[in-house]
Amino acid sequence: MTQLGIVHRTIPRADKSAVDKLSRFGVATIHEAMGRVGLMKPYMRPIYTEAKLCGTAVTVLLQPGDNWMLHVAAEQIQPGDVVVAACTTDNEDGFFGDLLATSFMARGAVGLVIDGGVRDVKDLTEMNFPVFSKAIHAKGTIKATLGSVNIPVVCAGAQVNPGDVVIADIDGVVVVPAAMAQKVADAAEAREANEGDKRAIFASGVLGLDYYKMREGLEKAGLRYVD
Amino acid sequence: MTQLGIVHRTIPRADKSAVDKLSRFGVATIHEAMGRVGLMKPYMRPIYTEAKLCGTAVTVLLQPGDNWMLHVAAEQIQPGDVVVAACTTDNEDGFFGDLLATSFMARGAVGLVIDGGVRDVKDLTEMNFPVFSKAIHAKGTIKATLGSVNIPVVCAGAQVNPGDVVIADIDGVVVVPAAMAQKVADAAEAREANEGDKRAIFASGVLGLDYYKMREGLEKAGLRYVD
Amino acid sequence: MTQLGIVHRTIPRADKSAVDKLSRFGVATIHEAMGRVGLMKPYMRPIYTEAKLCGTAVTVLLQPGDNWMLHVAAEQIQPGDVVVAACTTDNEDGFFGDLLATSFMARGAVGLVIDGGVRDVKDLTEMNFPVFSKAIHAKGTIKATLGSVNIPVVCAGAQVNPGDVVIADIDGVVVVPAAMAQKVADAAEAREANEGDKRAIFASGVLGLDYYKMREGLEKAGLRYVD
Amino acid sequence: MTQLGIVHRTIPRADKSAVDKLSRFGVATIHEAMGRVGLMKPYMRPIYTEAKLCGTAVTVLLQPGDNWMLHVAAEQIQPGDVVVAACTTDNEDGFFGDLLATSFMARGAVGLVIDGGVRDVKDLTEMNFPVFSKAIHAKGTIKATLGSVNIPVVCAGAQVNPGDVVIADIDGVVVVPAAMAQKVADAAEAREANEGDKRAIFASGVLGLDYYKMREGLEKAGLRYVD
Amino acid sequence: MTQLGIVHRTIPRADKSAVDKLSRFGVATIHEAMGRVGLMKPYMRPIYTEAKLCGTAVTVLLQPGDNWMLHVAAEQIQPGDVVVAACTTDNEDGFFGDLLATSFMARGAVGLVIDGGVRDVKDLTEMNFPVFSKAIHAKGTIKATLGSVNIPVVCAGAQVNPGDVVIADIDGVVVVPAAMAQKVADAAEAREANEGDKRAIFASGVLGLDYYKMREGLEKAGLRYVD
Amino acid sequence: MTQLGIVHRTIPRADKSAVDKLSRFGVATIHEAMGRVGLMKPYMRPIYTEAKLCGTAVTVLLQPGDNWMLHVAAEQIQPGDVVVAACTTDNEDGFFGDLLATSFMARGAVGLVIDGGVRDVKDLTEMNFPVFSKAIHAKGTIKATLGSVNIPVVCAGAQVNPGDVVIADIDGVVVVPAAMAQKVADAAEAREANEGDKRAIFASGVLGLDYYKMREGLEKAGLRYVD
Repeated sequence: MTQLGIVHRTIPRADKSAVDKLSRFGVATIHEAMGRVGLMKPYMRPIYTEAKLCGTAVTVLLQPGDNWMLHVAAEQIQPGDVVVAACTTDNEDGFFGDLLATSFMARGAVGLVIDGGVRDVKDLTEMNFPVFSKAIHAKGTIKATLGSVNIPVVCAGAQVNPGDVVIADIDGVVVVPAAMAQKVADAAEAREANEGDKRAIFASGVLGLDYYKMREGLEKAGLRYVD
Repeated sequence: MTQLGIVHRTIPRADKSAVDKLSRFGVATIHEAMGRVGLMKPYMRPIYTEAKLCGTAVTVLLQPGDNWMLHVAAEQIQPGDVVVAACTTDNEDGFFGDLLATSFMARGAVGLVIDGGVRDVKDLTEMNFPVFSKAIHAKGTIKATLGSVNIPVVCAGAQVNPGDVVIADIDGVVVVPAAMAQKVADAAEAREANEGDKRAIFASGVLGLDYYKMREGLEKAGLRYVD
Repeated sequence: MTQLGIVHRTIPRADKSAVDKLSRFGVATIHEAMGRVGLMKPYMRPIYTEAKLCGTAVTVLLQPGDNWMLHVAAEQIQPGDVVVAACTTDNEDGFFGDLLATSFMARGAVGLVIDGGVRDVKDLTEMNFPVFSKAIHAKGTIKATLGSVNIPVVCAGAQVNPGDVVIADIDGVVVVPAAMAQKVADAAEAREANEGDKRAIFASGVLGLDYYKMREGLEKAGLRYVD
Repeated sequence: MTQLGIVHRTIPRADKSAVDKLSRFGVATIHEAMGRVGLMKPYMRPIYTEAKLCGTAVTVLLQPGDNWMLHVAAEQIQPGDVVVAACTTDNEDGFFGDLLATSFMARGAVGLVIDGGVRDVKDLTEMNFPVFSKAIHAKGTIKATLGSVNIPVVCAGAQVNPGDVVIADIDGVVVVPAAMAQKVADAAEAREANEGDKRAIFASGVLGLDYYKMREGLEKAGLRYVD
Repeated sequence: MTQLGIVHRTIPRADKSAVDKLSRFGVATIHEAMGRVGLMKPYMRPIYTEAKLCGTAVTVLLQPGDNWMLHVAAEQIQPGDVVVAACTTDNEDGFFGDLLATSFMARGAVGLVIDGGVRDVKDLTEMNFPVFSKAIHAKGTIKATLGSVNIPVVCAGAQVNPGDVVIADIDGVVVVPAAMAQKVADAAEAREANEGDKRAIFASGVLGLDYYKMREGLEKAGLRYVD
Repeated sequence: MTQLGIVHRTIPRADKSAVDKLSRFGVATIHEAMGRVGLMKPYMRPIYTEAKLCGTAVTVLLQPGDNWMLHVAAEQIQPGDVVVAACTTDNEDGFFGDLLATSFMARGAVGLVIDGGVRDVKDLTEMNFPVFSKAIHAKGTIKATLGSVNIPVVCAGAQVNPGDVVIADIDGVVVVPAAMAQKVADAAEAREANEGDKRAIFASGVLGLDYYKMREGLEKAGLRYVD
């Protein structure tokens, strides 16, 4: 059960080599390599176009209008971690800004994924600290109510466990369970090699209809061509 | 990891006596008894005002525009179950109607919670089959792509494991993990007893300010009264 | 091309017998009978639960905050017509209330479908005048800018031509092109007969998996059962 | 300037006779009588169909996820008041339930208008306590952060000053400044008398086109009739 | 009637010279030149700021979560075409990515307008392939259900017939019926010439009030100036 | 009471030196300096990333689909003003484009904040005219119905009085009442000085937990650390 008021200090982070390998692929590729699961909802957007990140999740469960737990989470960050913040209810307040980002960077965090709002976006962009959020909002928050750190959370529709690999780029945010990281990285690699070949083929004018041998299936399904 | 194409036939359902006890309380009470966690998002609404349900979850992961897995799920229903259907993406198609409801009722299902659309609402209302959904939509679906049955799902922002207790009424939908069901039921009972007393007290004109002894806290926080 | 400032006085209404036959079926059934097309978006909701309608469309293209064209449309209503109002932009003002409803009823209109707001909902309910709208809003409108009457419009995502049959109930709103009305009515009839049988079968405990012979397809698709 | 941490105990309530008179009219009529201003956004909906209210505003500014100020507001309620609750940010938590309603009723409140969520809707309905809200949500709130009571607030897009008259029914929520209450009540009365006559006229088949003498204006604007 | 399972191979494309002329004007200008009709809803946004396109429509009707028909459409593309993809229901899956873009470009397509999601946005931007979409989403799609190609569709609220001219830029997306293309292009040209003059006039400090001779109209409407 | 059809020519603008000072700070800082009030809703976004503005408000109340009052407002602009446009209802039409911007700039306006849509975004960007809006939409508007200029308005959830200081940047839009401008500017200055120090401290690895002395509070609130 989700429990408030808990901080887990020890979490099983995904293997570093698997994380490194996953960092070479885009979110769309990794999502396909996982069997088309693991995506957050598409309202999660980068605060600047080039933002991207890949790291192990330190999870946070926030209360609306309250960023106390982000301070608690800072202490749990290890180099290579991504903070993944969920909230007990829909809330777009600006939970995070340049000071927390400075703190997170000092601890080695590689980015933030937050189902809420952030502010100081100009600073964050200049600091080159990648953030994926639901909103940009100057609204400040308080520090009054306990949430939790490093418990399983649901963030933007995706289940995230502490230590899972989180990858984000302009196409969205995907979560790879720690135990599957190496396998998914390998599948992504295989997939990407294959894609490169395909691009040349399609550029030469070959149609997907022929390359994927779709014509028979379409005919069987009853597709009718009319002149 | 969420996996597509799997049906778990054996699931650890919450204890029946705990489910029965939970059925006596409202969603708001149970959510409080759990420590204010476990709620689905408030866009989940009953299709008729009086709808309410309490049962053990048979979970389904649907694909957009495809209700194949609801048919697969039907076979896994045992008396007292609630089908909880999530979807791999946001989709409001009408996945469910009177025929599936007939089938579900024949199996002993006590209701449906679906992060999607339903149709035949007039029939469902006459059948007195409680449904909580994101939308009402006549749009039909196909049966072409595999999802899964009885895997952990995220439904309307809440994590649901097969066998968890799901309670829904006009205030929303709450999920109680199977292992916590008895404890939460007991806490809900304690809470409700307490509420009854309070209602009489407040009806007599006693203020929450006094009953909950808030005045000191407010003063300390700096509240200023002006005439 | 959509053109503003035009009123077509002569429109080819669907055959009355086909309209009468369609009025016997629900929106979900008709939508299926048409091959799963023709639905408006699910944000179109009845202003009272029991509202339903079936009639031939008198179409209106409104300007935001302006209901002038609904007055112009009133004159074009013939008994059995449904007024279908689109707007040149998203707008939820209260374009329609009890006075226009009185006028429409005097002309024989059987209801209103409007991609906008309506008001006087208590009166409309007492008058038993079925309305399907995007919003309920007390906001009044002006009479200053031309739209058109009886031109093709896009209403809540559906193309509607003057004279088409529009059917609406709690499941949504569907549009049947005038030329297809009889054929769709016949298909709906066939479909409904079939449904009645099915309900009894499913009530007896037969599963859709068996009735629709889905097991082989599921196996072929790779569905795996785990105990 | 909006200021947090203040409770105004003395507010200039609108004249009781004006409030009584306004209570005889619907929201749409009053909004028109005011010159088409003063409405809240249409997402404010009654929690039960028949809910309606008319009273003088006790205003509250809430913090997200925190209902402390509703307890503070309770003490400021006088018979005939409506509590109008805004929030410093968008938040749909269940700030209000049956216990606070009991307290409010004991003080003589005639209803609640809240730009947020409420819960215990079944109880509130049975108590016949009218509530107009943005959402229904079982989510509980805390009591930790100061807002204010009886300061000017923006609630669902409308400016509300303490003591203003707030009228709500199924068509929406409208705010009449205290100083204008009598004048608006008189205008509403005049308008309504006029409406009654019109309904009979339109029922007899007279068109708005003729009754409002719109034909010339339409022609001048360039409306073209085509057969 | 919209019909699923059909591909029209022969479509009446708008005249090339009219298309070329239209390509010189912005969406706002063309929309005005058409008499303020023809726009898609404003949720359609370019995937990169500089994206713009003008071409003849090859239309596609997709099923949710299924991009099979985009492959079918590829074969129907002729140089200068824009693919316009609608969906039978609201769905934001990533129907389109770099491989389909490669294929479309090889066929001479000048862009894509899709009432759904796309992915591989970084690649699409580098390829300089203009896309206007409802969402960016990494979610993959399947190839299982028939839609149609080159039938009339409603895309983001606008009716689009195969062969119509579609123009898109940062202000939105507009559809010009093939038969009106030359006339609208001429009207846009006239309008734009006029605009250039106006900019200089307003830059010199002349007010629209005077230039458009609005003062009399405002006075007549009752505008009152107060010092 | 909000009144339509009025233009106030004389408004009490905030002190220029206070405005100048406020222009040195970001929106998040000013919002904090005001005590966390005064923000517009986060759907108000800049039309280009670098847009920012600080000036005194000339307010406008628009009618849906009608930009007449923006022309009336132009005449009331003095150098250093920001036009703040609200609408009597939700409407995303393109009320504003390059010609009005040219006029506004000629009068000395420093930007526009509009709870509606704008168009000609490419031109506006090239002109470096900062606009914060709810939408970008090519949809044209008419000039037919009176609103008002320089009356108090509610814009995107914030109360704005003529002459108030409005500051906007990528984090949002904040409104400072004219009478508080100097005091808020001073508070912002104090706050910002303080922030600079903090950034260095956090960069050195000091945690917010220690710097803000949160550990005791967290312990008291019951936070539990688990290994």
